[in-house]
Amino acid sequence: MEIAQHNESLLAAHQRAFNYIAGETDQTEAILNKLAAFQVAIPSWALGTGGTRFGRFPAGGEPRNLEEKIEDIGLLHKLNQSSGAISLHIPWDIPSNPANIRALAAEHGIRFDAMNSNTFQDQPGQALSYKFGSLQHVNKAIRQQAIDHNIEVIKHGIELGSDSLTVWLSDGSCFPGQLNFRQAFQHTLEGLQEIYKALPDNWKVFVEYKAFEPNFYSTTVGDWGQSLLYAGKLGPKAYTLVDLGHHLPNANIEQIVALLLMEGKLGGFHFNDSKYGDDDLTVGSIKPYQLFLIFNELVEGMDARGMNHAKDLGWMIDASHNVKDPLEDLLQSVEAIMLTYAQALLVDRKKLAAAQLNNDVVTAQEVLQQAFRTDVRALVAEARLRAGGSLNPLGYFRAAKVRAQLIKKRGLKTVATGL
Amino acid sequence: MEIAQHNESLLAAHQRAFNYIAGETDQTEAILNKLAAFQVAIPSWALGTGGTRFGRFPAGGEPRNLEEKIEDIGLLHKLNQSSGAISLHIPWDIPSNPANIRALAAEHGIRFDAMNSNTFQDQPGQALSYKFGSLQHVNKAIRQQAIDHNIEVIKHGIELGSDSLTVWLSDGSCFPGQLNFRQAFQHTLEGLQEIYKALPDNWKVFVEYKAFEPNFYSTTVGDWGQSLLYAGKLGPKAYTLVDLGHHLPNANIEQIVALLLMEGKLGGFHFNDSKYGDDDLTVGSIKPYQLFLIFNELVEGMDARGMNHAKDLGWMIDASHNVKDPLEDLLQSVEAIMLTYAQALLVDRKKLAAAQLNNDVVTAQEVLQQAFRTDVRALVAEARLRAGGSLNPLGYFRAAKVRAQLIKKRGLKTVATGL
Amino acid sequence: MEIAQHNESLLAAHQRAFNYIAGETDQTEAILNKLAAFQVAIPSWALGTGGTRFGRFPAGGEPRNLEEKIEDIGLLHKLNQSSGAISLHIPWDIPSNPANIRALAAEHGIRFDAMNSNTFQDQPGQALSYKFGSLQHVNKAIRQQAIDHNIEVIKHGIELGSDSLTVWLSDGSCFPGQLNFRQAFQHTLEGLQEIYKALPDNWKVFVEYKAFEPNFYSTTVGDWGQSLLYAGKLGPKAYTLVDLGHHLPNANIEQIVALLLMEGKLGGFHFNDSKYGDDDLTVGSIKPYQLFLIFNELVEGMDARGMNHAKDLGWMIDASHNVKDPLEDLLQSVEAIMLTYAQALLVDRKKLAAAQLNNDVVTAQEVLQQAFRTDVRALVAEARLRAGGSLNPLGYFRAAKVRAQLIKKRGLKTVATGL
Amino acid sequence: MEIAQHNESLLAAHQRAFNYIAGETDQTEAILNKLAAFQVAIPSWALGTGGTRFGRFPAGGEPRNLEEKIEDIGLLHKLNQSSGAISLHIPWDIPSNPANIRALAAEHGIRFDAMNSNTFQDQPGQALSYKFGSLQHVNKAIRQQAIDHNIEVIKHGIELGSDSLTVWLSDGSCFPGQLNFRQAFQHTLEGLQEIYKALPDNWKVFVEYKAFEPNFYSTTVGDWGQSLLYAGKLGPKAYTLVDLGHHLPNANIEQIVALLLMEGKLGGFHFNDSKYGDDDLTVGSIKPYQLFLIFNELVEGMDARGMNHAKDLGWMIDASHNVKDPLEDLLQSVEAIMLTYAQALLVDRKKLAAAQLNNDVVTAQEVLQQAFRTDVRALVAEARLRAGGSLNPLGYFRAAKVRAQLIKKRGLKTVATGL
Repeated sequence: MEIAQHNESLLAAHQRAFNYIAGETDQTEAILNKLAAFQVAIPSWALGTGGTRFGRFPAGGEPRNLEEKIEDIGLLHKLNQSSGAISLHIPWDIPSNPANIRALAAEHGIRFDAMNSNTFQDQPGQALSYKFGSLQHVNKAIRQQAIDHNIEVIKHGIELGSDSLTVWLSDGSCFPGQLNFRQAFQHTLEGLQEIYKALPDNWKVFVEYKAFEPNFYSTTVGDWGQSLLYAGKLGPKAYTLVDLGHHLPNANIEQIVALLLMEGKLGGFHFNDSKYGDDDLTVGSIKPYQLFLIFNELVEGMDARGMNHAKDLGWMIDASHNVKDPLEDLLQSVEAIMLTYAQALLVDRKKLAAAQLNNDVVTAQEVLQQAFRTDVRALVAEARLRAGGSLNPLGYFRAAKVRAQLIKKRGLKTVATGL
Repeated sequence: MEIAQHNESLLAAHQRAFNYIAGETDQTEAILNKLAAFQVAIPSWALGTGGTRFGRFPAGGEPRNLEEKIEDIGLLHKLNQSSGAISLHIPWDIPSNPANIRALAAEHGIRFDAMNSNTFQDQPGQALSYKFGSLQHVNKAIRQQAIDHNIEVIKHGIELGSDSLTVWLSDGSCFPGQLNFRQAFQHTLEGLQEIYKALPDNWKVFVEYKAFEPNFYSTTVGDWGQSLLYAGKLGPKAYTLVDLGHHLPNANIEQIVALLLMEGKLGGFHFNDSKYGDDDLTVGSIKPYQLFLIFNELVEGMDARGMNHAKDLGWMIDASHNVKDPLEDLLQSVEAIMLTYAQALLVDRKKLAAAQLNNDVVTAQEVLQQAFRTDVRALVAEARLRAGGSLNPLGYFRAAKVRAQLIKKRGLKTVATGL
Repeated sequence: MEIAQHNESLLAAHQRAFNYIAGETDQTEAILNKLAAFQVAIPSWALGTGGTRFGRFPAGGEPRNLEEKIEDIGLLHKLNQSSGAISLHIPWDIPSNPANIRALAAEHGIRFDAMNSNTFQDQPGQALSYKFGSLQHVNKAIRQQAIDHNIEVIKHGIELGSDSLTVWLSDGSCFPGQLNFRQAFQHTLEGLQEIYKALPDNWKVFVEYKAFEPNFYSTTVGDWGQSLLYAGKLGPKAYTLVDLGHHLPNANIEQIVALLLMEGKLGGFHFNDSKYGDDDLTVGSIKPYQLFLIFNELVEGMDARGMNHAKDLGWMIDASHNVKDPLEDLLQSVEAIMLTYAQALLVDRKKLAAAQLNNDVVTAQEVLQQAFRTDVRALVAEARLRAGGSLNPLGYFRAAKVRAQLIKKRGLKTVATGL
Repeated sequence: MEIAQHNESLLAAHQRAFNYIAGETDQTEAILNKLAAFQVAIPSWALGTGGTRFGRFPAGGEPRNLEEKIEDIGLLHKLNQSSGAISLHIPWDIPSNPANIRALAAEHGIRFDAMNSNTFQDQPGQALSYKFGSLQHVNKAIRQQAIDHNIEVIKHGIELGSDSLTVWLSDGSCFPGQLNFRQAFQHTLEGLQEIYKALPDNWKVFVEYKAFEPNFYSTTVGDWGQSLLYAGKLGPKAYTLVDLGHHLPNANIEQIVALLLMEGKLGGFHFNDSKYGDDDLTVGSIKPYQLFLIFNELVEGMDARGMNHAKDLGWMIDASHNVKDPLEDLLQSVEAIMLTYAQALLVDRKKLAAAQLNNDVVTAQEVLQQAFRTDVRALVAEARLRAGGSLNPLGYFRAAKVRAQLIKKRGLKTVATGL
């Protein structure tokens, strides 16, 4: 089945909805253009079934190699026209032939977003173990191994045309006394400085933070304050990366985002949703209003600094798919992001600023809620339609029986690398 | 300015929005009828400026007595046609002439919802102190005083035509060792049994629970499990009352609601919103999707038991208004409740049930999100319009300069009783 | 090296400490007797290195089969004389020859504590998948498979001389809409009822609850209130099991324990410690005072009901050992439990009760703190010494190079079954 | 009754305990000297009964003016010899005659610790309201009023001999949209810069942070990361102040402390304890091990920088006394601090460092637990005894019927200024 054909059956209802919403705002075209430009990177490890320490229940048809991962993302992008980037994970995705991989990605309209290093697991044949950390480790040889790995990742990224490195360290401790916090910080900083030196001039490095897990007492890059300390000491190419699930309960993430933007140190995002911890659920499935408030700060803060929404921050999904088809889940996540971005673009900024100046809390709340309560599904669908995508990506995915085809082609028992 | 006059200026836009949404569902009339029937009680203590232990910043024009409180709610109800009930607090609102008060309320179309007792504060002239609890107290005389007070509250309620009593106990402890938990439970149970005996046959008693505050180590009715234990031991007229802000971080309130409905022991609700604790913020201002999920369970669970949405549970707002005009805040809260109720009514229950039967998690999520993403503002506005209310209650309140008039009439320094 | 020999070098210092503390209380002998009687079961899955979804860093010398697991626990028990029980997990520990296993355990002075079923993972060759739950499942055949498995576990337990079954269900949902909460509860209840029927008369079934993980939106036995509902509907042989890590942030676990005891429905404990979630850290390593407060309620509540501390509740460790030698960790956990139990026995209950009666919060706190601040290490060591154990189990374990021997015997790459 | 007389009856038991513990360490004298030097400031507002937004239950005999507050602290200091400092709050404690107040304090051996400003409440007659914040306010005149107030506080402090200013701002917002986070930060920074300019050369300013309350959506100095940002931009006289109750659930405060020390930006402490939020409970009453871990970092980190434990950080209690006699509660709090400090001094730092170097997590935990499990009450008592204080301050306070005397002298209905 062709996308166009599937669209046809949906067109009348879409047109009704679009006409209504387009008639209610004079910014329709501007918003459609911004939506079209906005691309969310898909992490290579999110294409397979995820799991927990208690178990994993794989589906089937998972990509067996990097080429198939790119094909999967190519399909997502063909449907939603908003997934034109991939974020690779080394060593899970070392390209045997970078030129071929670049060509394949280009065919699918996909660019290479941030590269991800892995010093939180031991790989078969690895000389030294990360059991007690990597860059923080008391053993210099292990720190060096972790530094070398990150530099290796940069090299792979250069070959593929990426221009950023995300460093997520699980380093930390499980018990009081295990770590000298200060020394762990200093070791980590020194390691990051070595990695920073290996960055090409046009590259950025993102220092990701996380409150807890897999270490359950302390984490050495544990919150935005720590990440910002590292990024500040590293230099202008270093930024903080915000993963929505990496906070303590009740944290005001949107305020963190606003302050990082203010400091010129926000680098990018890992989108997901959560109720308890780093649950890695589908974006927007638990706290959609929080996501809206974050986008509201992003739009306001990036505009205030003259930043390009689509290019000046790294946007990436980082979720785990334990009970859903990973591709369907990713379609839902991207949809949630685009809807929320559209709502944030609809916020009446002048009215909001005026309300803030008058301490008119009621009106300030109304302005945000008016945008959030607006049904923008037709705007996002129209942007997709104009770009050649599907009016209903999930509907198409089901109607075209994509998963069944993938299982037929790749088998039922395939296991994609990743979590 | 008349409401009708104000509506006129908004009518064209409303009609456009309503026509669109009415065209998208075949349940419009059914939903409008349910919305019209749904009334949210306003607590008498929410009409004045709230505060925290750090301070209070009163506005002005607050109601100086019960009559003025009823007038305020009358105004809200005139505007939104959804606030036709008042929940009184004794001793703050003891009516000097119940018959007159009843007549005044009737004039405004307001009935008397649950009565609230107060054994968490000492009143001037009170014989014995509640410093160390009321129904849980080690001193029998103090327990009796609290029992007597609750029975007194029932009597006031009977005179006014109420038919339920809400018992919120702040009883608990601030330090380990302070309390024998078992004894505190038994004392509280015995007290509630005495109060239960004084309930008229057609009355209900709601046992409210709260995780913490004002006691900071333990609370003697601390969670739904404890409340249900009490309610079960008391008998068929006793129910659990759920206040949205009275839970530990990350609690799944919608599941609690579903289980209480299953047990036939859900009595009613205190609506508010919160980010950290019992913040008592405007309903729907922080976690609107959680509110939707709760209403989704309410609609499903009440329908499954053949319950009447409008009559078989107690619906009440319980919020504090520290930085907003209390009346404006209440209008926002009621609006959020009505919108969420409308969205819950829109859920495609057949499709949801089918998805659940197939473990089609993706579709189940879609069904809920489709309803939540629908812009139902015009439905709620239409229900108000048909009932003679305002298309935009908040807009009218501002345009008619209601607060200025109240200040002029009542003064700037008035202080309503309550928190 | 013999234990006695190792003890000799520690005897002088021990005697000094013991003499001092024994001189300060007239209950020394009574406490020593209670300590000697108190045995903590070791779960069979805790003898290997644990891990997280991000990775696992095995040590070496892990037990390769049930026989070796019993040997490991035998060693622990020989050292601390307080680990004379094992809690098995089916299917990880199905005994090929129950009689031999019983004899081996008896040799080591070990009895069989609660049996644990597993319906949270799919085993190789399993007919139907637990991906979407087990007892809660919409598919009757899957529910039946889970019921049958539990009955099978009971049979294994009977053969070994166990007399209780712990049912931990990971059943729940990851996304709003996935589950009909009410139906999930009913299915689960029906399944438990079938299992209950298969219980021998002298058996108990423990219904364990958990707030979240591996499901991240709802859990079908999610808190003590739900567990108590199930246990109440099941009958007198059903009890609630409390795992310290299975609560929402800030929960008052000691109050829950007191109320469950009051209701006669507390069945047993899974000990561990945590800072963030179900971190499964060494008992007493993060919040030792909370553990003390729990034991304080246990001692008080069990005494009030005339219960036998050692026999009338199930005591078990449930921790994961990601960065420590599992046997060393277990020695630390048992030590923490024994110390805390000793402190709870030291509480001056008359003085506490009098303070509570007087609302003398300061003295009540003092009474608890006096006990907690007392150094009881020599009491616990003396109890071990008298029973023939080691004055310093951890010191002996290191001095005798136990782990090196186990690695030599079993190999470096062994992997114990479990988490 | 004289202190010496009361001590006499306790001396034999004390001597036994002290002899035992003194025999177990060779650092006894060094520790006693450090304990003697360590002084904890009492905040002037903690001498009266606290309360919550729900109510307040005053005791009696509360100090009616600054002179009586100093007398109360003088009494505490006489008993425990560790409370030789007072932290004043302006405007609650404006001295009418600074010279007299200084002389009175000197008589009691009390110095003036950090001064506290108050821009979180409106005072009678105040020109402009802080309802919507102070230094963050959109209105420049209100910001200036707050700046002027802080400069006024510095002036009072200079007159009294204080050398530091604590700025706690409740500034923030209750609802999304209310605040432009960036602008609020900038305004606050500019205000702090003005205040900073007014600081004498030998003064410090402490920027206190708090996660939430009284604002329930955002706080403008909300966490240590934000406080450090302000302190860094202000200059070398600006530091971060850590209040134990001002964090999100599960925060690792000891790691924060270690990092702030590393950055040379830790200024001081507000001690209290809590289970849920900013509960302001007695120090050490809920999580004594966390307090120990914090002191462990303080001792290690201050030693590493060559800092003087007693002088180089500000130590202050900040608690609320809702159900206890405030003076008794303060005695318990100071005792908990001194015991914990003594335990932290007992930590075997060489062994800990060696364990850390070997990733010997088990031993690292043992080292900390050995210190924490040691009964150091006799050490702290001995330090008090040598300094002329009471062996049992709380016992003396009760035996001498201090509260009854204060009520007799000051009356039952007095209300101390403060929370």
